[in-house]
This record gives sequence, C-alpha cells and structure tokens, in this order.
Amino acid sequence: MQVRVDPAGNLRGVLTAPGRHAPRLLIGSHLDTVGNAGAFDGVLGVVLGVALVEEIAATSSANQQLPFTIEVIGFSEEEGVRFAKPFLGSLALIGELDEATLARTDPDGVSVAESIRQFGLDPAELPAAVVDLAAFGYLEFHIEQGPVLVSEGHSLGMVDGVAGQTRMQLVFTGQAGHAGAMPMGPLRRDALAAAAQWVVEVERYANHCPGLVATVGRLETRTGASNVIAGDATATLDVRHARDAVRHAAVQHYLDYAHAAGAARGVSVAHTSLLDQDAVPMDASLTALLADAAFRATGRTARVITSGAGHDAMIVARRVPSAMLFLRSPGGLSHHPDENVLPQDVEAALAAGLEFLRSLRDDKTMLARMIGREPEGNYA
Amino acid sequence: MQVRVDPAGNLRGVLTAPGRHAPRLLIGSHLDTVGNAGAFDGVLGVVLGVALVEEIAATSSANQQLPFTIEVIGFSEEEGVRFAKPFLGSLALIGELDEATLARTDPDGVSVAESIRQFGLDPAELPAAVVDLAAFGYLEFHIEQGPVLVSEGHSLGMVDGVAGQTRMQLVFTGQAGHAGAMPMGPLRRDALAAAAQWVVEVERYANHCPGLVATVGRLETRTGASNVIAGDATATLDVRHARDAVRHAAVQHYLDYAHAAGAARGVSVAHTSLLDQDAVPMDASLTALLADAAFRATGRTARVITSGAGHDAMIVARRVPSAMLFLRSPGGLSHHPDENVLPQDVEAALAAGLEFLRSLRDDKTMLARMIGREPEGNYA
Repeated sequence: MQVRVDPAGNLRGVLTAPGRHAPRLLIGSHLDTVGNAGAFDGVLGVVLGVALVEEIAATSSANQQLPFTIEVIGFSEEEGVRFAKPFLGSLALIGELDEATLARTDPDGVSVAESIRQFGLDPAELPAAVVDLAAFGYLEFHIEQGPVLVSEGHSLGMVDGVAGQTRMQLVFTGQAGHAGAMPMGPLRRDALAAAAQWVVEVERYANHCPGLVATVGRLETRTGASNVIAGDATATLDVRHARDAVRHAAVQHYLDYAHAAGAARGVSVAHTSLLDQDAVPMDASLTALLADAAFRATGRTARVITSGAGHDAMIVARRVPSAMLFLRSPGGLSHHPDENVLPQDVEAALAAGLEFLRSLRDDKTMLARMIGREPEGNYA
Repeated sequence: MQVRVDPAGNLRGVLTAPGRHAPRLLIGSHLDTVGNAGAFDGVLGVVLGVALVEEIAATSSANQQLPFTIEVIGFSEEEGVRFAKPFLGSLALIGELDEATLARTDPDGVSVAESIRQFGLDPAELPAAVVDLAAFGYLEFHIEQGPVLVSEGHSLGMVDGVAGQTRMQLVFTGQAGHAGAMPMGPLRRDALAAAAQWVVEVERYANHCPGLVATVGRLETRTGASNVIAGDATATLDVRHARDAVRHAAVQHYLDYAHAAGAARGVSVAHTSLLDQDAVPMDASLTALLADAAFRATGRTARVITSGAGHDAMIVARRVPSAMLFLRSPGGLSHHPDENVLPQDVEAALAAGLEFLRSLRDDKTMLARMIGREPEGNYA
C-alpha cells in the first residue's frame, strides 16, 4: 500500500487497482481512544483492514489484479475527547470539517486548526482529505461495546444502522425545606422526588418500547443535604432508537411526564437540548453483500443489530454507502481496561471480510451492481 | 438578674426567689446559629425569656415576691456547626457533655475542650454548669421553622414532643455501561433507576402514614455521565415520627423496598446507619399548663404540633420536665436570611408566657402540683 497521513491526521493506505477511475472500497475505523480504555475500540477495525489487504493480496494470483482499489483508513479523533466533538477525522473525509469545528479549542485553549499545525499538517490542505469520488463503499469492523452478541452467543453482528440520539438536561426546581419541620403533602416541593418518579418512568417506558434505550446517567442536587428537602435536581437524559419517529415520541412523552411529576409537587421543570442526532441507516445493498459473505465464511447468520453508539460509519455514510460488522465484546465491556475480543471472532471477521473482497473481485456482476457501471479490469 | 457564663459557654441569668430551696423554672433556647441564617432561630427564645422576666417583675407588686426562681439560659452550640455535634450547651446543663464529646475537633483540629479554654473558660469546671436540682420545669420558645402553623393560620403551636429520627446512607451498586450499546432489560444493572424507584416509595409510604416525614435529600452517582448507565448511586434517608415504633417500621419497609428495587435490576444495596434517635415527648403537665395559659392569653387554642427538628428541650427533657411553644414561621422558612416572625405572634407568645408565670405565681396549688410539694413564699 501507499501510505500517507492526510491533512486531518487520518492515516491512509491505498492498494491501487489499475485504471484511472478504478472503483474504490474504503475499510476503516478510528485510531484514537478514550482515557483508561481498552485495546480494541477503533484500532481493531484498522488492523483488520490491513490484514484483509494482506490476505486478498496473498490469495490473488499474480495476473489477477483487483478490479477495485482498497483504501484502509485509520481515522483521527473519533472519540471527541480533546475538543468535546467527535468524528473529526471522518468529517474531514466527507468535507465537513467546517470552520466552526476548526475553531473549537481544547482545555488549554488550543484550537483544532492549531493542533493540526502543531502535528505538522496544514488545515488549508483539508480538501485533500476528502474522499475519492470513485469510492463505492465503506466497511467498518468494530467491537460491539455492548452485551447483545455475547449474551446471545453470536460472534458477529451485522449493523443495520446507528441509532438516532437525543441528549438533554432537565432541571427540576422545587423549594428546599427542613426535612423534619416540613410535613409530607402539598406544602412539600421536593424536586428530587419529582425527578425520581420521572427516572422510573424513563426506564419503564423504554422497557416496553422495542429497540428503545433510554438512560438517566446523572442526577444531582445542589441544595441537597441529608436533612434538607432537595430544592433542585438536575438530570441528564439519553434516548436512542433506530427510528427517529419512535425516538421523538419517546422524548415528548418523557418531557410531558417530567412536567406532570413536577406539577404534582409544585416543582417546575426546564429542559435544555444537548444533542438531537438522526438515525443513520447502513446501506442495504452493501450490508446484504457483507451478510452473505459472513454467512458463507462462517456458516452462521450474523445477528442483525442496531448500533447504539456512534461510529465513523455514521459520518461516512452521508457520502459513501457504508456497512458495519460488529465483533462480540466479552462481558459487554468497552472504554475499560478489561475490554476484550475473542481470537476466534477476529478470525470470523477476517474470513467474512475476505469472502466479501473475493466475491467483489471474482463476481463482475456484483461489483457492477455496487458501482452502478461495468467495472474495468480483468475477470477470470 | 444575676448573670454568668457557665463553663460550657451558656449565658445564664437568674432572678432569685427567696428561700434556700426555692423551686426553679428554666426558660431558654440557643444563642448560636448556622451560617447564612436568619435572625430568630434560637435567640428569639432567649430574648423572650428576658422579656418575660422583665414583665413578671414589672407586674408583681413590691411585697409579692415570686415563689420560684427563674433562670433564663442562652445555650451555646446547639446547631452543631463547628464540631458536627449539636446540643453541646444543653448537654452540659444535664451533665452529659462527656469526654468523647470534649475530644471532638473542629475542621482546624481544635477540640471542644480546647475551644472552651480559648474562650476563657475551664472544662474542668463543667460540673458547675449542671442544672440546679430544684428545677421543676423548662420552657422553650422557638420559631416553628416549618410551614404548618402559617398554612393553618395559627400564631402559636404547642409542641407535644420532638420526633425521633433515623438517618442513614444507602449505596446502590449496579454496573456502569454504555447508554447506547446496553439494551434495556435484564442485562442492564442501572443503580440510579433502582435508587429512583426507592425514592418514589420513600415519599409514597410517608404520604400515607400520618405524622411520618421521610426525605431523600441527596442522591448522587459517582460513575454517572449522560451517556453512561450509572453503576452506583448513593442516597441519604431521613425518617422522623413522634412514635418510635412507627419510625422503625417505616425504616424497615424502606430497607426492604430498596433491596427489592435493587434485586429487580441486579443491583445490590448496602446501608449505613448515621443516626437513630428516639422521640422525646414533652412533659404533659407542664405542656397542659402552658397550653391553658396560651388559651387564656390569646383566646385561641394553640395548634398541637410535633417538632420535626431537634431542640435543646429534647436534651433538657431528660432531666427536667419540659414544654415548648412554637411561633409561626412566615413562609415556613428557617436557616435562611428571609427567616422571619410576626410582631403579633411575638406578642402572643409573650402574653402566653406571662400568663403561665402569673398562674404559677398566683396559684399555689398549681405550683405545688408542678414541684410535688408545698412551695415556700408568700401567696396572696
């Protein structure tokens, strides 16, 4: 492969097929990680891309050149740790690393643009990071980071899409009071009790709505002390679903319920929207092709799964048809030093990827379908 | 009055009646307060004691000496701010300011004993602070610090007792997880959801148990972030009732419910007891006497009320029959700069107290009943 670091800090290796307009398949994931994390989140997908290129090259005969270029991408800054904004590398790939993002600063006041320069790159060159027009597909291999595959005994999961996400903050405002001198009943304006009733409903509603996940991860009181009725409670809300309409209905229900739980106690509720991100479906054709390959390679149907977490594929999909394959996470763990992956699952993912590459290499019809025209190159 | 500061820092003024064993009536409250507080919590009861002595002296004829001594006490350190232990002054009065308490230190490492010395007093002299054996009653006037009287249109409240109190901390331990990648259902071990369900039950049960007040004032997650399922939640619990059996049953229910709410989510619950203080009833005879006096002075029956907050009377009652009169708190506010009291309520309390003193002065039978023997002195 020819390897370069693009102006966004993405590490990119290209195995070029002959022909000026050879179709291009992207395989990638991210190279960065969070603090105190494990060894597989992101980088496993990059390593698998490199391994697949090695394998396909090794299993292709000398005169059987690939009819498509393969580009392996190790994306920069997917987690968003430094600038509190994720997906910087993949946004650059699709030409959407905009001025506002470049102006964001880290806790030391260093901007994204400045950090790119400090890394020896030039933000003015960012257009050179934009994906080749000939790209017809993007594959991402990634650990699941959740317990679904491991709990159901699947090695691999076919991602049908990345769930849409709403994040908000709710502030419940009642009135602080003496825990002993203020009786129960209408005089009590307990913000924490109202918030707690709402937390229970967030869980209950999601338990009964297939595919919905809803989480209150933080709940805090500023006024609180053990002998003081909480005059305030601040809660976070995280709601995800593969279908935006379901998610929006859930969020509306949660807000209505928060107001009702507050009103029953003389507690007012204000909310701030922090994120409202639509669901991103994976490309059906590419996903079907990858699923078929996985079945042929492993003899098992991969479990179809919606990704609750965001991934570079979610960004790349705006420009390039994308598909994702999950590898099971033992213990469902991620962002944790004990994050792991099983060797046989890595082998299964490699076999699926290789089968996918072979079918595209060997079946001209299939590649034609993917790229929407007759491919160049010599087929057997 | 003869005024002294006793070795515990209590300010004490005595209007002495003739006779070596004259019965002694105590009137008092505390002089200290919390930070950022109001002007009435505690000190109002001391000022009322002084005013009552002035009034009774002014309204007694020259040859009509009081048949009992009155001692007005301004207690030190009732709030417990400095040494995280309340009632130091009243504990000294009943001879229970023990070595362990004297050894407690403030945040700067200064012990109670040392702070007494720094104030120019001698902890070795503490026995001199102990209440006179002739004391037959203790009266305390105090703002209610709650909303009951103001919400029901009463000026004054007769305290039947100080509620018993349980304080504990509960720690719910589940498992942190990715808010998007961890589906709802049995794999989720959301400690905050379990705690929230329990908070709702704490409120619900108390709402249906007459006289019970139960409060979760703090609820926190250490692991929490908006996109992370809370692996832990720490909550405080404050339960108060005039009857200890009711309080104990409530606490047991709350613990059982916490374990059940946890078990439904794979969340374990541990609790630590922080305080288990029995209810302290006021003296029925003295309270009846004070209630009668209040009725005669104001033409209204004072509202009988259980104090949810602790007071010096709770400590003094261990040795001396005690009674408390509450003055309504506008807005139910206390421990707040807006804490207030209405002039007409202060007048009503003064009138009730004066009527109480007059009846004891003028009705030999009444005093005899209180002190259990014939009083000395000249009756009209």
